[in-house]
Amino acid sequence: MRKFVYSFHQGLSDGGAAMYDLLGSKGANLAEMARINLPVPPGFTITTEVCADFYANDRQYPTGLEAQVDAALKKIEEHDGRNFGSKHKPLLVSVRSGARVSMPGMMDTVLNLGLNDVTVEGLAGSADDARFAWDSYRRFIQMYGSVVLGVAHHRFEEIIENVKIDEGVVEDTQLAAQDWHRIVEAYKDVVRAETGKPFPQDPHDQLWGAIGAVFGSWMNQRAITYRRLHEIPAEWGTGVTVQAMVFGNMGDDCATGVAFTRDPSTGINEFYGEYLLNAQGEDVVTGTRTPRPLSKCYAKPGEISLEDALPEAYAELDHVRQTLERHYHDMQDIEFTIQRKKLYMLQTRNAKRSAPASVRIAIDMAREGLIDKREAVMRVNPQSLDQLLHPTLDPDAPRRLLAKGLPASPGAASGVVVFSADEAEMRAQKGEAVILARVETTPEDIHGMHAASGILTTRGGMTSHAAVVARGMGRPCVAGVSGLHIDYAAKMLAAGSTIVRAGDTLTIDGTKGEIFVGLVPMVEPSLSGDFAILMDWADEVRRLKIRANAETPLDAETARKFGADGIGLSRTEHMFFDPERIGAVRQMIMAPDETGRRSALDKLVPFQRRDFADLFRIMVGLPVTIRLLDPPLHEFLPRGELELSEIAEILGITRTAVLQRSAELSEANPMLGHRGCRLGISFPEIYEMQARAIFEAALDVAVETGMPPRPEIMVPLVSVRREFEIIRAQIDRVAAAVFNERRATIEYDVGTMIELPRAALTADSIADLADFFSFGTNDLTQTVFGLSRDDAGRFLPRYIESGILAKDPFVTLDIEGVGTMIRIAVEKGRTTRPDIKLGICGEHGGDPASINFCEKIGLEYVSCSPYRVPVARLAAAQAAIGSARTYPS
Amino acid sequence: MRKFVYSFHQGLSDGGAAMYDLLGSKGANLAEMARINLPVPPGFTITTEVCADFYANDRQYPTGLEAQVDAALKKIEEHDGRNFGSKHKPLLVSVRSGARVSMPGMMDTVLNLGLNDVTVEGLAGSADDARFAWDSYRRFIQMYGSVVLGVAHHRFEEIIENVKIDEGVVEDTQLAAQDWHRIVEAYKDVVRAETGKPFPQDPHDQLWGAIGAVFGSWMNQRAITYRRLHEIPAEWGTGVTVQAMVFGNMGDDCATGVAFTRDPSTGINEFYGEYLLNAQGEDVVTGTRTPRPLSKCYAKPGEISLEDALPEAYAELDHVRQTLERHYHDMQDIEFTIQRKKLYMLQTRNAKRSAPASVRIAIDMAREGLIDKREAVMRVNPQSLDQLLHPTLDPDAPRRLLAKGLPASPGAASGVVVFSADEAEMRAQKGEAVILARVETTPEDIHGMHAASGILTTRGGMTSHAAVVARGMGRPCVAGVSGLHIDYAAKMLAAGSTIVRAGDTLTIDGTKGEIFVGLVPMVEPSLSGDFAILMDWADEVRRLKIRANAETPLDAETARKFGADGIGLSRTEHMFFDPERIGAVRQMIMAPDETGRRSALDKLVPFQRRDFADLFRIMVGLPVTIRLLDPPLHEFLPRGELELSEIAEILGITRTAVLQRSAELSEANPMLGHRGCRLGISFPEIYEMQARAIFEAALDVAVETGMPPRPEIMVPLVSVRREFEIIRAQIDRVAAAVFNERRATIEYDVGTMIELPRAALTADSIADLADFFSFGTNDLTQTVFGLSRDDAGRFLPRYIESGILAKDPFVTLDIEGVGTMIRIAVEKGRTTRPDIKLGICGEHGGDPASINFCEKIGLEYVSCSPYRVPVARLAAAQAAIGSARTYPS
Repeated sequence: MRKFVYSFHQGLSDGGAAMYDLLGSKGANLAEMARINLPVPPGFTITTEVCADFYANDRQYPTGLEAQVDAALKKIEEHDGRNFGSKHKPLLVSVRSGARVSMPGMMDTVLNLGLNDVTVEGLAGSADDARFAWDSYRRFIQMYGSVVLGVAHHRFEEIIENVKIDEGVVEDTQLAAQDWHRIVEAYKDVVRAETGKPFPQDPHDQLWGAIGAVFGSWMNQRAITYRRLHEIPAEWGTGVTVQAMVFGNMGDDCATGVAFTRDPSTGINEFYGEYLLNAQGEDVVTGTRTPRPLSKCYAKPGEISLEDALPEAYAELDHVRQTLERHYHDMQDIEFTIQRKKLYMLQTRNAKRSAPASVRIAIDMAREGLIDKREAVMRVNPQSLDQLLHPTLDPDAPRRLLAKGLPASPGAASGVVVFSADEAEMRAQKGEAVILARVETTPEDIHGMHAASGILTTRGGMTSHAAVVARGMGRPCVAGVSGLHIDYAAKMLAAGSTIVRAGDTLTIDGTKGEIFVGLVPMVEPSLSGDFAILMDWADEVRRLKIRANAETPLDAETARKFGADGIGLSRTEHMFFDPERIGAVRQMIMAPDETGRRSALDKLVPFQRRDFADLFRIMVGLPVTIRLLDPPLHEFLPRGELELSEIAEILGITRTAVLQRSAELSEANPMLGHRGCRLGISFPEIYEMQARAIFEAALDVAVETGMPPRPEIMVPLVSVRREFEIIRAQIDRVAAAVFNERRATIEYDVGTMIELPRAALTADSIADLADFFSFGTNDLTQTVFGLSRDDAGRFLPRYIESGILAKDPFVTLDIEGVGTMIRIAVEKGRTTRPDIKLGICGEHGGDPASINFCEKIGLEYVSCSPYRVPVARLAAAQAAIGSARTYPS
Repeated sequence: MRKFVYSFHQGLSDGGAAMYDLLGSKGANLAEMARINLPVPPGFTITTEVCADFYANDRQYPTGLEAQVDAALKKIEEHDGRNFGSKHKPLLVSVRSGARVSMPGMMDTVLNLGLNDVTVEGLAGSADDARFAWDSYRRFIQMYGSVVLGVAHHRFEEIIENVKIDEGVVEDTQLAAQDWHRIVEAYKDVVRAETGKPFPQDPHDQLWGAIGAVFGSWMNQRAITYRRLHEIPAEWGTGVTVQAMVFGNMGDDCATGVAFTRDPSTGINEFYGEYLLNAQGEDVVTGTRTPRPLSKCYAKPGEISLEDALPEAYAELDHVRQTLERHYHDMQDIEFTIQRKKLYMLQTRNAKRSAPASVRIAIDMAREGLIDKREAVMRVNPQSLDQLLHPTLDPDAPRRLLAKGLPASPGAASGVVVFSADEAEMRAQKGEAVILARVETTPEDIHGMHAASGILTTRGGMTSHAAVVARGMGRPCVAGVSGLHIDYAAKMLAAGSTIVRAGDTLTIDGTKGEIFVGLVPMVEPSLSGDFAILMDWADEVRRLKIRANAETPLDAETARKFGADGIGLSRTEHMFFDPERIGAVRQMIMAPDETGRRSALDKLVPFQRRDFADLFRIMVGLPVTIRLLDPPLHEFLPRGELELSEIAEILGITRTAVLQRSAELSEANPMLGHRGCRLGISFPEIYEMQARAIFEAALDVAVETGMPPRPEIMVPLVSVRREFEIIRAQIDRVAAAVFNERRATIEYDVGTMIELPRAALTADSIADLADFFSFGTNDLTQTVFGLSRDDAGRFLPRYIESGILAKDPFVTLDIEGVGTMIRIAVEKGRTTRPDIKLGICGEHGGDPASINFCEKIGLEYVSCSPYRVPVARLAAAQAAIGSARTYPS
């Protein structure tokens, strides 16, 4: 008989933290806490394997599960002292989901399970509190009714509202035991009316209903969306944890709360959390009551911290905090309940944290000896560094403060205000930066939060849905801005007399919790302190070089500042669009013959020479790869009417001639057209000009700096060895000519992009002539998939959403297909030139998963956009460490 | 010391026919004829390796060559009895090129070498004919001057014209010895004036000059073009054969001629050839004098055949003819000279022949026991069958005969007349059918002949340049139409009072040698007789199945008639363009939602059902592969203004709405866009409709014929396993539904095109679900090369011309790149499904070289256009035989 159920109680557990695959993160950590003797109410976890079985077998449970659940329930009763369904001291349980990784709020939970018309009396008696018992019962029916029985939430809300009107009261707290009793009866009527059946009275029926609902919620739309956004496979499944209920709502010596063992925004080593007296856990998380700070140091004047309110329980909790950090070697996110001054731990998990916090915590913990440097490097999500590398508000810029709230997720953002997730998504798709403003967010808003540049809410705290999700996504967020009033219907928000309408611009500062009217200028981030230390530690372990894709001096300087090891891709065509030059470029395109083209190209030589000299000078001592002209010529032609006439006038030809040439050059499939080295073959004078400019610039900079650059000249779009052979010979001829004219020489390399399948498949014969290969993974992805990046928008999002493709192959390298193509090229290339220099220079060069692949196949470098360089440095370090772990060699 | 020189004389040879790689075809066959004791003047051949060395070493000869040449020259003197440079009986030699395969007229030749101011007297004395000696000397200077020294031909011609004017004569034959002597002196002056040096008098200098010129001519433009057209690698090089001269121009008991051992146009086993009395070989080939027929049976009344003129020599020649056919087991093309009644053989080679002749000769020779059936199958070039499969003139059609000439190359063609090769090429590129009319053709006209649909000349015989080249290219040709007068300047031709101008239409019948004014209707070819026998023999040995690409009943019937083994590709989109349906198709595209699309698709079901039923019925008993909709939807939208308005009216929407939808659907790179199974995923109802039509049609035809079809449903453009999985599941659901409705079932297969690199790279995971793979080599070539077929015209021709690519990859499969991709897919596919059915269905399915590749990698079938089916059947047979020879397994 397979083991489907794992029990735990304080001091003894079947499971433990390492079993998160099987028990889900929540179940495994409850077992772990119980195992190390922390105060955990007894319970058990049904494994994720049961979830997989459930979906594989048409939603049937495996044989034997029921018996194991019954046995485990017995154990809870033994250790708890209460009995399930008992009319005297009834045991109530919670039923919660728990996947391998936390999916907050995505799946269903049922609390207070075990209550019925009989046990409610037992609860009232044993707690000596009838109001509490009937309130718990109505909470149970409401939760069970909506989660398990599918009764709409508002049907229950209406009943409470009606009773309050009847009783002439405003707050829930003003309702008495008999009012809740009356509400319970009305709830049961609603359930019978909506479902055609009475509310289930048998606690065992209730239990199996709740278990089925939790497993069922694994496939609800919210969960599916969340998994897609967070790249969680559906096969993982969820566990179900059933645990004895404890109550934070049995009076003012009760409390419930959530906490982080350090400050999740800043990473400072202070106990950070929120609690509510006399409340159940859901009340904190949903943000319906604004909670108070746990520790004195975070309390504002007049706010009573838990440290003050229940000092013994706080002290015990603080002790647990330290135990957990020592035990887990990581910052924890915990949930607790204090029932009549007795502390119970309900959850612990590795805490989400802001990017700055993750850096600080990794460095601090390494210094505290909790982890070593390599582990510190592994602790920071490279993607999250992105937040640290982007601008913050310029402290000296004028600004007009609209309102203040909680600094729920750091970073700054400006954008147009929208009031719904759908509109956020819609406008973001059009390329607008958007600030999503909501009273509070729910899991239904996820897509809009993802689309938004920043989020603000008028309700809820630092652990509200909006705050947690925004931090996870790296979106700046200001939460609980109570001074703002949002009017969804009028699509506006108001702070006092100031009105901001949908479409107006706001700026938010999630680090400080401030909202400004209009656009506030931003400044570049600082890259010193903990960040610099982390980068140093990463550099100590990484093997891959990180280069940048850069054409302009600004790009090159940014890259150098961010620690790039050189330039891996300089797209010379970007230099052609400069207004000073585009005229000569167009003259070249319009020229009827080589003589005409040469005369236009002669005008471009000084520009190109200066372009290249700038790059060599900035990157002195580091390699610079320059790609020769790549795009089809028609890309340089004017599109607009006015521009067209201008060109005709400048070139002294008719508009018709311009149009005709433009039509001649137009292509059915430009991606697969007359571009790359095909242009170099057709019009050798273009590459000749570029090669000359490169060599002259390199010689100039050699003289100027005393450190001769070693240019790497890259030939694009090679598909046939002979193309490369012809162009390499031409470059060598130009080099010889320039060296002869200048009476000076310089070392240089000539290599090729591998961006077409044919080049990969014949890499052995090309490598024979090439000093290096640079995988152009953008175009390689397009050709391997037969997928135009420009056109994929019509179906690619749906492909990813429905799981036809796991990830967007233009963001993360498709290892199965494109990766195989690259492996083939690497293997073949090394057969004829074992020491060939290999790198990649597509967008994938800044993507951690893709970098991990590059590490595994032993490339020498990846090249990415300048802002991604630190991300790539950290990802490369993690790949080096990870690969040493996973792939012993 | 490597052997650079191979000697031969009657009865003994260093070399032989098998050594054609080393000696060139001409040298090897001279050696072979000498070896089997045929009357061959003594000589020697410098190997093709020397040519390769010559080009590899900056045009230097290898050490030791000179000594070997001297020794070989000594041997010639021994066997000939004359001495090189002797003032009494001077030995003269010819110096000829000779590559592995014949390249007629492409490279240089020098005759009468060894004459100088001294030896000319010796020749006069020994021949007892001063006129002959001085004529020979002037021929030599003229030939050597133009070929070796680069003096323009017309400079020599002018001198003869001047002397004739001086002497008051019209014909060369009227000039006496002293006139030729005077001409020789003037020639020498021209050479001195043009080259700055006297004409070389030392025969050894002359010899090395000629050898250098022959090697040099390997790289002349004509030769390069010819090699490209005939796919001859430049590395092969040419041999140089130096041979004692014999003279057909020493009087009326002398003759020279060329002959075929059978009739090269019809294949009839008669001795077919032409000769000139008292002439040198060049006179026959250049077509300056019209030669006479060799045999009585080809002589017209009044014409004197060689058989009549020199009966003993003819008898000996006829004996040689039979010896050669028995020895070579193939029809030969020979050159001979009769010097004072003594026969000398100067060349033999396997003869070029028309397509009908090649079929007839193969069958006849097998029946005669010269070869076996498999060899007969190998003897016919599959490409040449094309000529037999295309229409001939309708015998009953009215026509207006313009003129008659020689039936130089069979087949009929209509087209607009042009008078220059350049114009032929230009108009052909625009898609016009062109008839090239020339007085005579030269190697400079090759590109125009290639571009033309048919060729006519007013001068020259059946072995003239025009005739030989046209037969090789499979172009219909009528040669020597002496009744026509061509005026290049006026761009017109005249037959009596009838004037035909450039751009007017002519029809030529190369089989009969007739020219007609205007267009004459054509009829389908007969496929019986020898052709049918050859096909039967081919079918006996081939392993590959040959299917056809066919959508219409006419295509399918043609395919069946041509012996197709089924349909390998039925492109359903072609069925959508029918005027009856395109409306519904467009309605479907314009529909705003699935309901709208379904209602339009419902209208298409009956059409598609009928389409498929037609194919199943015609192909009863054979497999039919139907590809689901492939092209992007915008391909079905109207382009013109008028059509646009019509659509708007029919669909009851505004023109703007049509334009807007059209703009929405337009794509940057349609080849890589929203097409193939991506449409099937986005709009499942389309494939659902098609699958339903297929299954319903199959069930209908099963009832009707009693032979249930087994449809093969093909999913296009799969790149990800999951795409295929989704669509296969859908097809299976539709099948189940239809089978349930009809209470009948049928077997069917579902497979996929492999036309994207990613599909090939992940073929193992796709094969797991697919009953078959069909390689879509058109798209696979586009994506592997990153090359749009629509746009490649700008540079691909130049790539092929300059040898960057050996062949057009859209015509002949690129085995190195695309072939490797296919091999990967075949290997991976078989790992998960060893018995997977594999075929190809690109244009390459009808290309013999590509078919050979398909045989080698063990595909089950190739699919090609219906007219190519016989070509493919023969190519498949040859591949099976060839692969057995070349790749023993």
